[in-house]
Amino acid sequence: MSQKRLMYLPLGGAGEVGMNCYVYGYGPRDKERLIVVDLGVTFPDMDNSPGVDLIIPDIAWLEARKDRIDGVFITHAHEDHVGAVGHTYARLGAPIYTRAFTANIARRKLEEHGVAANAVTVMSAWPDQVALGPFKVGFLPISHSIPESSGLVIDTPEGRVVHTGDFKLDETPLVGEGWDPVLWGEIAKPGVKALICDSTNVFSLAPGRSEATLGDNITQLVASADQLVVATTFASNVARVKTLAEAARRAGRSVCLMGRAMNKMVEAALETGVLSDFPPVISPEEALDVPRGNLMFLVTGSQGERRAASAQLANGKYRGHKLKEGDLFLFSSKTIPGNERGVIKIINQLSEIGVDVVDDSTGAYHVSGHANRPDLEAMHALMQPQILVPMHGEHRHLRAHANLAKAKGIQSVVAVNGMVINLSGNAPKVEEFVETGRTYIDGSVQIGALDGVVRDRIRMSLNGHVMVSVILDDDGPLGEPWCEIKGLPEIGSSRAGLAEVLEEDLNQFMMRAGRKTLGDDKKLEDELRRIARQSAQSEIGKKPEVTVVISRLS
Amino acid sequence: MSQKRLMYLPLGGAGEVGMNCYVYGYGPRDKERLIVVDLGVTFPDMDNSPGVDLIIPDIAWLEARKDRIDGVFITHAHEDHVGAVGHTYARLGAPIYTRAFTANIARRKLEEHGVAANAVTVMSAWPDQVALGPFKVGFLPISHSIPESSGLVIDTPEGRVVHTGDFKLDETPLVGEGWDPVLWGEIAKPGVKALICDSTNVFSLAPGRSEATLGDNITQLVASADQLVVATTFASNVARVKTLAEAARRAGRSVCLMGRAMNKMVEAALETGVLSDFPPVISPEEALDVPRGNLMFLVTGSQGERRAASAQLANGKYRGHKLKEGDLFLFSSKTIPGNERGVIKIINQLSEIGVDVVDDSTGAYHVSGHANRPDLEAMHALMQPQILVPMHGEHRHLRAHANLAKAKGIQSVVAVNGMVINLSGNAPKVEEFVETGRTYIDGSVQIGALDGVVRDRIRMSLNGHVMVSVILDDDGPLGEPWCEIKGLPEIGSSRAGLAEVLEEDLNQFMMRAGRKTLGDDKKLEDELRRIARQSAQSEIGKKPEVTVVISRLS
Repeated sequence: MSQKRLMYLPLGGAGEVGMNCYVYGYGPRDKERLIVVDLGVTFPDMDNSPGVDLIIPDIAWLEARKDRIDGVFITHAHEDHVGAVGHTYARLGAPIYTRAFTANIARRKLEEHGVAANAVTVMSAWPDQVALGPFKVGFLPISHSIPESSGLVIDTPEGRVVHTGDFKLDETPLVGEGWDPVLWGEIAKPGVKALICDSTNVFSLAPGRSEATLGDNITQLVASADQLVVATTFASNVARVKTLAEAARRAGRSVCLMGRAMNKMVEAALETGVLSDFPPVISPEEALDVPRGNLMFLVTGSQGERRAASAQLANGKYRGHKLKEGDLFLFSSKTIPGNERGVIKIINQLSEIGVDVVDDSTGAYHVSGHANRPDLEAMHALMQPQILVPMHGEHRHLRAHANLAKAKGIQSVVAVNGMVINLSGNAPKVEEFVETGRTYIDGSVQIGALDGVVRDRIRMSLNGHVMVSVILDDDGPLGEPWCEIKGLPEIGSSRAGLAEVLEEDLNQFMMRAGRKTLGDDKKLEDELRRIARQSAQSEIGKKPEVTVVISRLS
Repeated sequence: MSQKRLMYLPLGGAGEVGMNCYVYGYGPRDKERLIVVDLGVTFPDMDNSPGVDLIIPDIAWLEARKDRIDGVFITHAHEDHVGAVGHTYARLGAPIYTRAFTANIARRKLEEHGVAANAVTVMSAWPDQVALGPFKVGFLPISHSIPESSGLVIDTPEGRVVHTGDFKLDETPLVGEGWDPVLWGEIAKPGVKALICDSTNVFSLAPGRSEATLGDNITQLVASADQLVVATTFASNVARVKTLAEAARRAGRSVCLMGRAMNKMVEAALETGVLSDFPPVISPEEALDVPRGNLMFLVTGSQGERRAASAQLANGKYRGHKLKEGDLFLFSSKTIPGNERGVIKIINQLSEIGVDVVDDSTGAYHVSGHANRPDLEAMHALMQPQILVPMHGEHRHLRAHANLAKAKGIQSVVAVNGMVINLSGNAPKVEEFVETGRTYIDGSVQIGALDGVVRDRIRMSLNGHVMVSVILDDDGPLGEPWCEIKGLPEIGSSRAGLAEVLEEDLNQFMMRAGRKTLGDDKKLEDELRRIARQSAQSEIGKKPEVTVVISRLS
C-alpha cells in the first residue's frame, strides 16, 4: 500500500491531564514524515509513583523512528508541555521550534542536560512558517496563562490542521497577545481539515473570564491589609504575577519574589521582552529591613508542593522570614484535583499561626487559563473544522468534548494515548494502537512505569519488608536463620519479638528440611519466603514482602 | 488544690476531620470523673500511612484513668464517631450509651472483638437521662445524614453543657427526627454554660438545604434513563438510600443493594424501626434475570474506595454484572477533600465504557449533612451559650467558628486535640496539654503513629531498599559481600548491574578494612551502609535505605 495518509497520534495528554506529546505524520503508511508537538512532564504521587522525581511520556515509538522526525514544536512553556525537552533530546535529536519566551525556558532545561542553545530555533508569530518535509508549520498567538502561548497551523498535502494548544478566549490577557478572532477567522478561511482542541474545561458551563477582571479585586484586597501580604500563584502566570506586583506597588509595598520558579519566570519574561513595567523587586535579604506593612511576597507553591516557598513559610521560616498573626495569605490560584491535601495542610498551618487566608472560592482572585464550554463552542463555530479531535483532557473530558462537536454535526473521535488516527478521509478513523506509557525520571535514571521497580516500592510500603539470611555449607545449615524487619511492628500477638518468632519458625523448617530442599536455591528460597509470610500473618495479621539471601560456603 | 473544675478535652476530631473523641470531666483537678463522647476512626492514605488499615485516637491518656471513666456516649453511627468502639473496648472497659440504631451498629463492631451486646445500653431520646457520677446525660435528637443522630445534654454541677454532635438544621430529613427548634429552645432555657459545636461547614455561606429537596430531582433523573441506573451514596445516609430506592420504584425499576455497608445499614435501619416503607430489594443474583431498563443498583463506594462496589463495577464486573454504554451512574454524594483521585479514576473508567455520569456539581442530587454558617449562627442564637467551643473541624474551621462566636460576643477558644480546657469560669481557659496522637490498626496489631514503623515504610517507598549481607569468621571476611535490591533500577549509569557495582565497592572496602573495623559490628554496619548509599548515589542518583546483615561464624 503506497497510499499516503495524514495521521495523528497522541503519546501523552490524551486520556490524562499532563505530559502532553502529540505526533502528526504524513506519507505512505509506516513511512510517514513526523512532527512532534510538545514534550511535557507530569508529576508523581505517593499513590502511584513514590520516590519518582518526574514522569515523561514513553517515547520508545518515536525513538525507533527518529530518522523520520522533522521537528519538535513546543506550544508554550508550561511544564506539561516543555518539561521533557531536556530528558528526551539525546534520544530524539530532532530540532526544536518555538517562540522566544518558550525558547528561553526550553534552553534552560536543555542546558541542564548539556545541550547547546542552537537546538532550539526561535520562530516569530504567524505569518512566519517553517517548511519541514510535507509540513508547513506556523505559530498562531492565543491567550492562555503564560506568555506567548500559541496554537499551531499545520499545513499538509491533505489540508490545514489547527492544533489549538492550551487556550482561553481572553481579549485582555494583560501580558502577551490577546484572543484575536479576526486572525483565527482568516486562518480558517481556506477550510480546516482538522481542529485538535484543548478539552480541559469542557465541564465548565459559564463563559470564561478575562485576566483583566482580577486587577481591581486584588488591588483592593492588598490595600486593605495591615501586615505582611503573601500571594501565591503559578510562577509561569506572568500576567498574574504582574497584577499582584502592581497591587503591591499601589499599596506602597515593596515586592519580594520567593522561590526559584518565581524568579526564573520573571527573569525569562523580562529577558525576552514579553514583560515590561514590572515593579522593582527586592531580595529576601533586603526585605528583612522593610516593615511588614510595607512588604508583599510573591511565592511559589500554590499547589501545596512540600518544598516550595509557601509550604516553608507555613511550616516555619523561609529565607529568614516568619509569618505572624494578622498577616494575609492569598491563593491567587485554583487547586488542581489531587493536590487538595497539600494545600489544605498549608492553610491549616497558616490558621495555627493566625494568618488570614483568602482563596479563590469567591472567584474574585483567580481565573482559569482554559476555554470553558461556551468558548469551545465559539472556537468550533469560528474554525468550522471538518474533523474535531479533543485533546488535553482525561477520558471524561475528551468524550464530552467529542459529543459537543458531534451535536453540532462535526465529525469527531475520542482519541487517547496510543491511538493512531487517520485524518485523511471525511471522518477520523482509528487505525492502530501503539504501545505507550510513562517513563519515570528516578534520581539520574529513566525507568519504565511497568518495570516493577515502583511496584516493589509500593508493596514494601503496604506490607513492610522482611530480610531472611541463611548460611549453609555442604553439610547443611551453619547457625540459625537471621531476620531483619523494616516497616513492621516489632512485637506481634504472641508478645515476643516478631523477628525472633520468624527466626524460630524458619529454624524449625531448616532443621527438618531434607538435603534436596537445602541444596536447591530456588526451592529453599520459596519455602523460606512462604514460612516467613505465614508466620508473620499469624503474629501481626499481615504478609510482608520477603527477601531471602542464601549464602553457601564450601 | 481541691477546687473542682469542669473540663473539656478533645482527643480526636479537633484540628482534623475524623476519629472524633471528646472527654468531659468534673471534680478536683486530676481526680475528675470522666465521660467520653464518641470513639471514631479515620482512614489511612498512601502519603502518610501506607499499609495501615484504620486509624483510631491514641487513648493512652484515657486508659491510664480508666477507673475514672463513668461512661462512653456515642452520638451517631458514622465511622468517625463509632468506628473505634470495638478496638478500644478491652482497654477502657467503660459502659457504652447510645440510641437504638447506633447501638445496633456499635454492637456489630463489638461482636467482631468478642464483646457482648450488653456492653451497650440503649437510651431513649430526651427527656430520658442517665445519671453517672456528677453528670446527667440525655440524647437530644437532631438532623444529620444518618438516623438517630443526637446532640447530648450534659448537666453538670457547673451548669448545662450541650454537645451538638454532627448536625444540620433540617426540618424534613425524611428518615428520623427533624430539627426541632422548640425542643432545643427549651433545653436552652435554664441557660447553657457551654455549647460544643460542629464546625465542618463554617465556610459554606448559604443556608443548608433539606434532604427533602432532592426527591423530585432524583425521581426525574431516574425516570429519564433508558438503561441500567446505578447510584452511589454513603450507605449510612439511609434517608438518601430510601429516596433513591423510591425513585427506582416510581420508575418501575427493581432495587438491588450492592456492597456490604449498603446491606448492613438498611438492615440495621429496618431492624430498629427507623426505616419503613422501603421498597422490596432483589439480590445481585436475581438481578441477572431482570432487563437492564428495569433495574437500579444502589452501591457503596461514593468516595472512590478501591474495593467498593462502584470501583469494581467501573473496573469490570461485580457480582456478575457489567456496565454498558448508555447506562447512567449517579454520584448522590460529595467527594471529601483528599478522595478526588479515586473518584475521578472511576468517572474516567465509566467514561471509557460509555456510561453517562451525573455528579453533584449542580447541587441537584446531594445536600450536606452539616450546618452551614447561617445555620451555625442560628444555633448560637437559639442556645445563647456562655461559652462556645468549636469541634469537628480542621484548625481553619475551628478558628473561623470561634471568630464567628466572638463577633457575636460569645466567649470562645480554639481547642485542638490534647488541650485541656477549663470551662468553670466565665471564659474558657486552656490549662494543660496532654499527649495525644494516632494509633494505627495494622493487620492485627495496634501501633503508635510515631513508632517509626510507618516512617520506615515511607522511606522504603521513596528511596528503595538495599540489603547487604557479609559473612566473617575470626580471620576476616568469608567470601564477598552480597547485595539484594528492591524498589531500585537494576541498571545504573555505568551500565552494569546496580547490585554488582555495590558489591564491588563493598568488597573493596572489606578487603582494605582493618581488624578493628571488621571486629566492631556497629562500626562495620555504619561503614557498609555509608558505602552502599554513596555508591548508589553515583550509579542511580539516589540514596537508598540500607539494611546490613553481618554473620559471624566461629
